[in-house]
Amino acid sequence: MATSAMMAQDKKSFTLEDLIPGGNNYFNLQPKNIQGLRWWGDLMLKGEIDELKAFNPANGKEETLITLQEVNDLLAAKELGKLHHFYSISMPYEQKWMLLSTRKHRILVDLDNKEVIWTQDIPAKAANQDWNQTTRALAYTIDNNLFVKTNDGKEMQVTNEPEGVLCGQSVHRNEFGINGGIFWSPKGNLLAFYRMDQSMVTDYPQVNTSTRIATLEPDKYPMAGMTSHKVTIGVFNPATKETVYLKAGDPTDRYFTNVSWSPDEKSVYVIELNRDQNHSQLVRYNAATGEKEEMLYEERHPKYVEPQHPILFLPWDSKKFIYQSQRDGYNHLYLFDMDEEMGLSHKQLTKGEWIVKDIVGFNEKAKEIIIMSTEISPLQSNAYAVNVKTGKRRLIGASEGTHRVQLSASGKYVIDNYTAHNVARSINVLSTTGKGKEINLLNAEHPMEAYNMPEITLGTIKAADGKTDLYYRLVKPVNFDASKKYPAVIYVYGGPHAQNITDTYNYGVRGWDIYMAQLGYVMLTVDNRGSSNRGLEFENCTHRQLGVEEMKDQMKGVELLKSLGYVDANRIGVHGWSFGGFMTTNLMLTYNDTFKVGVAGGPVIDWKMYEVMYGERYMDTPQDNPEGYKNSDLTQRAGDLKGRLQVIIGANDPVCVPQHSIAFLRACINAGTHPDYFIYPGDGHNMAGRDRIHLHERITRYFEDYLK
Amino acid sequence: MATSAMMAQDKKSFTLEDLIPGGNNYFNLQPKNIQGLRWWGDLMLKGEIDELKAFNPANGKEETLITLQEVNDLLAAKELGKLHHFYSISMPYEQKWMLLSTRKHRILVDLDNKEVIWTQDIPAKAANQDWNQTTRALAYTIDNNLFVKTNDGKEMQVTNEPEGVLCGQSVHRNEFGINGGIFWSPKGNLLAFYRMDQSMVTDYPQVNTSTRIATLEPDKYPMAGMTSHKVTIGVFNPATKETVYLKAGDPTDRYFTNVSWSPDEKSVYVIELNRDQNHSQLVRYNAATGEKEEMLYEERHPKYVEPQHPILFLPWDSKKFIYQSQRDGYNHLYLFDMDEEMGLSHKQLTKGEWIVKDIVGFNEKAKEIIIMSTEISPLQSNAYAVNVKTGKRRLIGASEGTHRVQLSASGKYVIDNYTAHNVARSINVLSTTGKGKEINLLNAEHPMEAYNMPEITLGTIKAADGKTDLYYRLVKPVNFDASKKYPAVIYVYGGPHAQNITDTYNYGVRGWDIYMAQLGYVMLTVDNRGSSNRGLEFENCTHRQLGVEEMKDQMKGVELLKSLGYVDANRIGVHGWSFGGFMTTNLMLTYNDTFKVGVAGGPVIDWKMYEVMYGERYMDTPQDNPEGYKNSDLTQRAGDLKGRLQVIIGANDPVCVPQHSIAFLRACINAGTHPDYFIYPGDGHNMAGRDRIHLHERITRYFEDYLK
Repeated sequence: MATSAMMAQDKKSFTLEDLIPGGNNYFNLQPKNIQGLRWWGDLMLKGEIDELKAFNPANGKEETLITLQEVNDLLAAKELGKLHHFYSISMPYEQKWMLLSTRKHRILVDLDNKEVIWTQDIPAKAANQDWNQTTRALAYTIDNNLFVKTNDGKEMQVTNEPEGVLCGQSVHRNEFGINGGIFWSPKGNLLAFYRMDQSMVTDYPQVNTSTRIATLEPDKYPMAGMTSHKVTIGVFNPATKETVYLKAGDPTDRYFTNVSWSPDEKSVYVIELNRDQNHSQLVRYNAATGEKEEMLYEERHPKYVEPQHPILFLPWDSKKFIYQSQRDGYNHLYLFDMDEEMGLSHKQLTKGEWIVKDIVGFNEKAKEIIIMSTEISPLQSNAYAVNVKTGKRRLIGASEGTHRVQLSASGKYVIDNYTAHNVARSINVLSTTGKGKEINLLNAEHPMEAYNMPEITLGTIKAADGKTDLYYRLVKPVNFDASKKYPAVIYVYGGPHAQNITDTYNYGVRGWDIYMAQLGYVMLTVDNRGSSNRGLEFENCTHRQLGVEEMKDQMKGVELLKSLGYVDANRIGVHGWSFGGFMTTNLMLTYNDTFKVGVAGGPVIDWKMYEVMYGERYMDTPQDNPEGYKNSDLTQRAGDLKGRLQVIIGANDPVCVPQHSIAFLRACINAGTHPDYFIYPGDGHNMAGRDRIHLHERITRYFEDYLK
Repeated sequence: MATSAMMAQDKKSFTLEDLIPGGNNYFNLQPKNIQGLRWWGDLMLKGEIDELKAFNPANGKEETLITLQEVNDLLAAKELGKLHHFYSISMPYEQKWMLLSTRKHRILVDLDNKEVIWTQDIPAKAANQDWNQTTRALAYTIDNNLFVKTNDGKEMQVTNEPEGVLCGQSVHRNEFGINGGIFWSPKGNLLAFYRMDQSMVTDYPQVNTSTRIATLEPDKYPMAGMTSHKVTIGVFNPATKETVYLKAGDPTDRYFTNVSWSPDEKSVYVIELNRDQNHSQLVRYNAATGEKEEMLYEERHPKYVEPQHPILFLPWDSKKFIYQSQRDGYNHLYLFDMDEEMGLSHKQLTKGEWIVKDIVGFNEKAKEIIIMSTEISPLQSNAYAVNVKTGKRRLIGASEGTHRVQLSASGKYVIDNYTAHNVARSINVLSTTGKGKEINLLNAEHPMEAYNMPEITLGTIKAADGKTDLYYRLVKPVNFDASKKYPAVIYVYGGPHAQNITDTYNYGVRGWDIYMAQLGYVMLTVDNRGSSNRGLEFENCTHRQLGVEEMKDQMKGVELLKSLGYVDANRIGVHGWSFGGFMTTNLMLTYNDTFKVGVAGGPVIDWKMYEVMYGERYMDTPQDNPEGYKNSDLTQRAGDLKGRLQVIIGANDPVCVPQHSIAFLRACINAGTHPDYFIYPGDGHNMAGRDRIHLHERITRYFEDYLK
């Protein structure tokens, strides 16, 4: 013991520069990783800085395909700019051709002959670039309109809409799994795209204070219960230069999600949702005419349905596709069969009290789907091969930890990158069949060995419902002394679509937790009911009453803290951002004898000021659920503030607009209570770079001022 | 001593409710006053709640003219609304006729016959009402346009301008003594008015966060060095319904100030100023044609000239008028004579190292001007009668204190309302001749006798120039013990046009000073060079370098504090608002080893974000004075912040726009320093009512957290 204590004293102390993204020593203390790994068929490419290598997992052979010097000599000869590393190149063809982009050009290099065989100028101001490898046409947006540049260099303006109409961009505020607005058909002959008319949506008046005199930057922001945007889907044919719009009927108060193509390019599939978000329909449209052909499948739920994955056709059978649904309470795969004689049928392919997180791809030969799932533990993400005929599953890679895999073209190999609570990082090339030998590319060292680390442990407690297990992560103070009494801070998020505790390195501990542990705080995080990866019932028990069940579960975390002999029950604080800012403010008001100090970042204060898509899924509209909105409106309880609460926002937050915190301050002033406040001018919903260091100095300082 | 200490313990302690405007006991602790005193000829009216009395100072007789019940019976019979008290009535005619206004009506009541003899409907939405007693026409504005309603009920729209053009309202942001935009000619036959085109001025994007979704409320705000508004002056003739505009030439970058009429209504006088504000011209225009007739007088100054008083014709000689000027270094009266044979001449009527603050009126019979001046002391304001022929002055009323006087029609009497450091309030009716007997109406009791008061003293120190005397006010902690070491807070304003220390009750101590003294702080205020009522040189030594000399003088105050044995030199704080917020922030950055804690309210951070009129007078333009702007730009020194500084603003401040403090926060974040911040949503440049209580709780709390 004496020796270990002395050793601890020899170790280094952290600064925020070591622990917070944006800090000047942050990357040095992150587990090592390998950039630029990807597949070219079943050969693994290693895109390094100075050279590009190909590695054959079948025989272990590795060869250098080209060097950076060689590439740049080729580019220089044609004045095509410069490549800085091979991290982002790809090899999209069977041929040994490398695709790369410089600032102004997209370029194909023949690696055998060492020559540039094709180039395409990138139009100035092109955003949302989506390049089709078959036709080599580029779809892109400039401002709010969509353009296509074909392989022969022709530039076509697909849309010509006024400012309030966005084309070729993500819609519905990135909900429903949407992250873009350009959808090339499988062979690149047609281009489906989103068109969003938001001219009828109220502007939120964001203000840019960095100009000589502050300037208005209005942002279309549809608030819960208010008029929302209207989305339609166009299909552009570069050959005819004509666009048809899918004849989906009046788009008012509807969501058009998860756009996908049939393999034959004849049909576009859309999962449609009503504004209530309690009824989804999978609909097929004729891509050539826009006609609605068939509603294939629908789901209803008294709370909400939330489609997040486009349908995916089996590569070996264009009559069969995979649909993902939470209809049995957990996200699972359903195999749909559009047999022409038998008609449409479907069967459940995976089942159990765990969820399919993603489809990685297919092994066509073995007729397997490669998925990521939580089958081993809700804290983990593991790859499995699922046999489409039998539904049987086979684990790929280590059974511990949280994996990210890249699948080779045939589906025979994966690059498996994973971390676990005691694994900083491990990268391996594996056969998905479980037969070939595993080739290890990296076992990262523990990067903080030289530092005095706190003890980080995982555990479970019962939720407030008395039956559900909740995971928690507990960080003890550095140089822990069980005879002392320490202040404790709960870090909370608590909302849907997020999970704070996972079987990743150190259980996903946050850098700030470590910093606070070094300053002598006990740090606790509990993933309450309402958070993700635990199934639908776990998540949707919060419906129409956000905050209520979540807080009850957090109070179970407080009970845990109080049960620890070394926590000073009179010095418990709480910190969270976004939904966690809502939770923090709510906990400070609701359990105002428990929490002495809180820091609420970018908080939701009143759900009727939050946007339609996310807000109404969980809360319905203010018109439909006045009681629920009123009960969760924190301005109503501003007078209950007793402890020290600092609210911090990005002054230009487009997600949780400044009106939330400003309304809260007004309510507190009217009620005679005293929150503290800070803003980060020019920042959005989160702080990045140096601002993130400043932010965590600020948060730390607040607990040091008032909780220590 | 023992007895006095015990007595002190028996006395009450203050709360902020007692000491801050908006507090629920604030008015009870203010010196008593008498509302509704005014003149009707040489009879004094006492407008009380229940009755209106007339008092004759010549013989001491008092009679009741009418009761509230009688008035309201008359109004009720004609459905003219209701009068709540006689505080705001007037008697504008020789006849015993009382003028009153209800919400919708202006009404004349014949007090002898107890009847309503005349009414006029007040148009809905009428603002800036200016009623002419001779013609009984009403000039008013609705939105941005000017209207006249004549005695016969005709409504005339004088102007019909688009939104960016304001008519009949104050211009040039109320600088140059301007406080309105409607100027009836002496007999009411013509109406001069301001027209301000601000369509070319940049909008500051103010945001109203109290609406369902925040809404933009753009405010035309010309920042120093940027394009300013253009002002012209129209003359409307209600008889012909025609308007002529004064032919003053291109109004770009010019100020048209101090509009006045000749007694014969034939001429309009304007004091015109260039944008540099270093050259003023008194110009006469033909009111009928708008032609410029003559430039009568001009002044230049290497720093600035600042006309603030319209010319005033002698009632007994329409060829003579009074012009006020600081040209000899102090504001004094100059008598101009437009003798037709001799031509224009002028002579200085008052002279000395003191200033004329105001002209109250005339005693026509005695050929005297009644003025307010600082002749006795810069801390005082006393009334004098100045003989126009001889220039001889005669003091009116007590020689101590700060007086406000109301002059009777003949100029023979004044109602003199004054306070002094040891006089809570005294109201007396006096003869201006010094001959009649003084009639005392009120000697107010000391209103805080029941409370434990701190000791409040006045003194002088030498300014940083080594020669100028500066006044200071020092407040010792309640229950002072010279053997203790106390923290000290400097309250500072420091800018032009203001004076914190005057010979008013308790030397004008602020309620918050008393509160802080009760909490154990030494409170100091010093009126530095640059502040008002000390003459031009005292004020304009700050020209082109605001903050520099002012801070040097404040540091003399710090020296004073340090010389007091009972001040802890390590616990000195500073607080100020507006210019005082600029001073506070500046002091925190510049003398960052001296000041440990500061609270800066509504601060100017960078003068180039302040408005043209005030800003350029003292700083010239950023183009002309880049060095001066840079040196006083506090964002440049954000990295020098060491102590705790809280910046507080009204979130909708239209005077010192939010961009100031937001730019400061951004600079501090970039420099890695940590100011604190708070905003009062919906509030402007100052907090009023309950918000002012909350504000002072907040300010107090900050010093208690970090300076105690």
